[in-house]
Amino acid sequence: MLGAMQDFALRVPRLIEHAAREHGRREIVTSWADGSETRTDWAGVARDARKLAQALERFGCKPGDRIATLGMNHARHLISWYGAIGMGGVIHTINPRLFDEQLVYIANHAEDRVLFYDRQFQPIVDRLKPQWTTIEHYVVFDSDGPDGFEALIAPESGDYVWVEGDERAPCMLCYTSGTTGNPKGVLYEHRSTMIHAMAEVAPAVFNISSQSAILPIVPMFHAAAWGLPFAGALAGAKFVYAAVNDAAVLCRLMNQEKVTHSAGVPTVWLSMFQHIDATGEVPRHLQQVTIGGSAAPRAMIERIMDMGVTVKHLWGMTETSPVGTAGMYPSHWDEMSKDERLDLIARQGAIPFGVELRVIDDEGVEQPRDGISSGRLQIRGPWVIKRYFKAEADAVDADQWFDTGDVSVLHPDGTMQITDRAKDVIKSGGEWISSVELENAAIGCPGVGEAAAIGIYHPKWDERPILLVVRKPGSDVTAEQVTAHLAGHVAKWWLPDEIVFVDSLPHTATGKLLKTALREQYKDHRLVSAA
Amino acid sequence: MLGAMQDFALRVPRLIEHAAREHGRREIVTSWADGSETRTDWAGVARDARKLAQALERFGCKPGDRIATLGMNHARHLISWYGAIGMGGVIHTINPRLFDEQLVYIANHAEDRVLFYDRQFQPIVDRLKPQWTTIEHYVVFDSDGPDGFEALIAPESGDYVWVEGDERAPCMLCYTSGTTGNPKGVLYEHRSTMIHAMAEVAPAVFNISSQSAILPIVPMFHAAAWGLPFAGALAGAKFVYAAVNDAAVLCRLMNQEKVTHSAGVPTVWLSMFQHIDATGEVPRHLQQVTIGGSAAPRAMIERIMDMGVTVKHLWGMTETSPVGTAGMYPSHWDEMSKDERLDLIARQGAIPFGVELRVIDDEGVEQPRDGISSGRLQIRGPWVIKRYFKAEADAVDADQWFDTGDVSVLHPDGTMQITDRAKDVIKSGGEWISSVELENAAIGCPGVGEAAAIGIYHPKWDERPILLVVRKPGSDVTAEQVTAHLAGHVAKWWLPDEIVFVDSLPHTATGKLLKTALREQYKDHRLVSAA
Repeated sequence: MLGAMQDFALRVPRLIEHAAREHGRREIVTSWADGSETRTDWAGVARDARKLAQALERFGCKPGDRIATLGMNHARHLISWYGAIGMGGVIHTINPRLFDEQLVYIANHAEDRVLFYDRQFQPIVDRLKPQWTTIEHYVVFDSDGPDGFEALIAPESGDYVWVEGDERAPCMLCYTSGTTGNPKGVLYEHRSTMIHAMAEVAPAVFNISSQSAILPIVPMFHAAAWGLPFAGALAGAKFVYAAVNDAAVLCRLMNQEKVTHSAGVPTVWLSMFQHIDATGEVPRHLQQVTIGGSAAPRAMIERIMDMGVTVKHLWGMTETSPVGTAGMYPSHWDEMSKDERLDLIARQGAIPFGVELRVIDDEGVEQPRDGISSGRLQIRGPWVIKRYFKAEADAVDADQWFDTGDVSVLHPDGTMQITDRAKDVIKSGGEWISSVELENAAIGCPGVGEAAAIGIYHPKWDERPILLVVRKPGSDVTAEQVTAHLAGHVAKWWLPDEIVFVDSLPHTATGKLLKTALREQYKDHRLVSAA
Repeated sequence: MLGAMQDFALRVPRLIEHAAREHGRREIVTSWADGSETRTDWAGVARDARKLAQALERFGCKPGDRIATLGMNHARHLISWYGAIGMGGVIHTINPRLFDEQLVYIANHAEDRVLFYDRQFQPIVDRLKPQWTTIEHYVVFDSDGPDGFEALIAPESGDYVWVEGDERAPCMLCYTSGTTGNPKGVLYEHRSTMIHAMAEVAPAVFNISSQSAILPIVPMFHAAAWGLPFAGALAGAKFVYAAVNDAAVLCRLMNQEKVTHSAGVPTVWLSMFQHIDATGEVPRHLQQVTIGGSAAPRAMIERIMDMGVTVKHLWGMTETSPVGTAGMYPSHWDEMSKDERLDLIARQGAIPFGVELRVIDDEGVEQPRDGISSGRLQIRGPWVIKRYFKAEADAVDADQWFDTGDVSVLHPDGTMQITDRAKDVIKSGGEWISSVELENAAIGCPGVGEAAAIGIYHPKWDERPILLVVRKPGSDVTAEQVTAHLAGHVAKWWLPDEIVFVDSLPHTATGKLLKTALREQYKDHRLVSAA
């Protein structure tokens, strides 16, 4: 007794078809790297995506083939997604900020056949072309010449029917760059992408409709710009893209295009605040700002809220498409004090329909949602990874739980709070010390520019924390002053056994602290307290 | 290259699991027919639904079996849905307002094994029990005795795991009562229900989250209360149910429970306005009112909008789960005048992601979206019917288009406007006259209580309209006065050839004009104009 309702494959081309049909005149605006501006709309994106699909078939591309991009946020990047996916291909966004050896590994591992790139990344292409073994065609997004995107699609008719197929077929490939080992590919499916997009437009997550004008500051090469290119088409929203991340440009665009929604990492807002302070130019139409990638400081949340804007945290990973949690406001929001609201929004958010989260201890025992019991955070759901691209084994356990590598607590109200990365936790006397919390507390100390906490071997406690501190220029802050400051923010037994002043700290290509390098560097360090 | 993301069947029990886990304390309030009030929450609904699933298995029910209800809106009705569906069954909501012969036909055709009913419908059960050939068990929702719902589930442990199965398996059965022939069953699937629920929470449709408190005035036996019991669980919303449709009760509940969202047919709001005018008691927390079933008059829309509430039309049918269109606000809403807004909201809404609509003429040619070209409205999508329950043939054409039986136009902005039912359109000289527009214009004439327009055979024009009018008590309005009024509202060639005053007009069980009976009654009527 199956099939009394209609057959309807959850395939991504349905998004662009819907957007073109029902919201065809809704604009897609791009501010390019050279300062010029172009405007198209969903009907134009759909037309050009069909032309691109035809051009890719002219190249000999077949369903399942990987089509790579090395590009910032702009309309042609968006078109390349829908064109490549529409011909049955797999769009593969490469992060241009990765190190050369990672860029070589990723494109070869993915077996990319075509690379679309921004002119500003010409040096990368020139440098790595000899090492990329599978790329047959190179197209410059923003070139007016014969090697350019417009020249590629110009001869095509646009008279094209999207390739049909299984809804579990892949449509997109994103690599994660961990701090150890080779990058790993996450292969999104049409179905997972569609269910994720439907979840994202909900009031509980991005809260978008055809009334929304979205400026995604998060790059399209970061976890698919958090899925916005898909959710935005589903909602029929307007997109405003900036191919450069300059606060003055972003703020001008926000007002000029009446941007209602934006999304990005916290640092974007630090530059935005500087711009606002310097010029008095405030984004006037913003309704919701979504912050992810890392935790937004409380003061940042407060400042944006004071602008009359809804602030939400979004937590997730490339492996989770990426939505894991989103900063939903509870039903008693109106009765909450400002401090209570800030405390809540400072957490990573609540769990939207679709995914499940749990926290387990070292023995795999699920921990209560008491806001205290911390442990490894695990997730499962329709848009969560099962197996990395070309991997021999699943990345999940028998019950489909994926271990995020984060340490967190779940609060009684269901909100989740990340406390650390699992491998960065300092295990002292059987208890856990959060390196992130120590670092955040240290950064609040005047004169401290950056700080990294790592665990050092201790014969009695297994590990004890040391704190590596980079002073702000001109500061002569002392270890005693830092310790005194920390004492006001963390438990006494969390206080670092030593504070070491250094000139700089190592970072990954995406700007995160490279703790593996620090642990390696300090692995033979002998604590005075252990003597 | 399939299956890199996780397996996740789109099954309805995921909704109640999610609601219980993430919004377990969000309340479900019921005001019963006897005036008493009970409160439970999503955790309680899930627990009782598990107990009910166990009780149904004790009855011998198996996956695929139909479990019927004859009930108003209340928490136990909601529990019966999730319990029956959770054990793999098919919940079958029966409309208690149908005629006896329809009630007999429907339950026997569905082969219902269990019937849950409200005590107020005991006379129906007593009368029809001898004719219902498949129902083995009768349970009274609101009885405290051994025949009652609570007594049924009390002995069960609630320690139950939802039945798994194919996501295309059926979960719900609703019959449509047309004006001709036997009622026909629409068999919803788990998958169609889930995709529909995800579409409904979006800002473009119901716009609901865990912050919402929903009072669905639309009964659960009308197209699954427009899908709200599913969408509300997905969002983790609070539900407020009233087992009686009394404006004083509804208004009190709305304020007492801080209801933010309501949904119902237009007549509900007429009674609500009378209550407000008589008492001054206004619903103070309402944010969105969704009106469907039939078109809301412009004055009604205006009055609710003036209360600071978002008003939306919802158009759909049992065959479409039911969302076909919803009153989305466009991006230029802020720049629209009040009149422009009213004109827009008075239409049936725009097309949400998922479904497609088109208008075709008598030759099957798709009509342009020009706001003028009217024709038969067709729809397709993941939550649209393919085949009626137990039917021998599909209800759709080769391209999956389902003919709605409505006549409508699509406007250039994508909004849809119903102009008539296809079978009620009056075809005069190759052009169409909308019976609905004639009737609406006539009702605006002082002294006219109700009006029905039907087509009468005419040798030259094929058909010409006559208008049957029921005068308001005490009125002596004349045919000349009605015609003069109509002349100010419709084209001259639309004016009825005759106006016939009658004492009453026939209606269906759900209160719609029974035009088939009128056409039958007047089939030999000779027009003076045709002489």
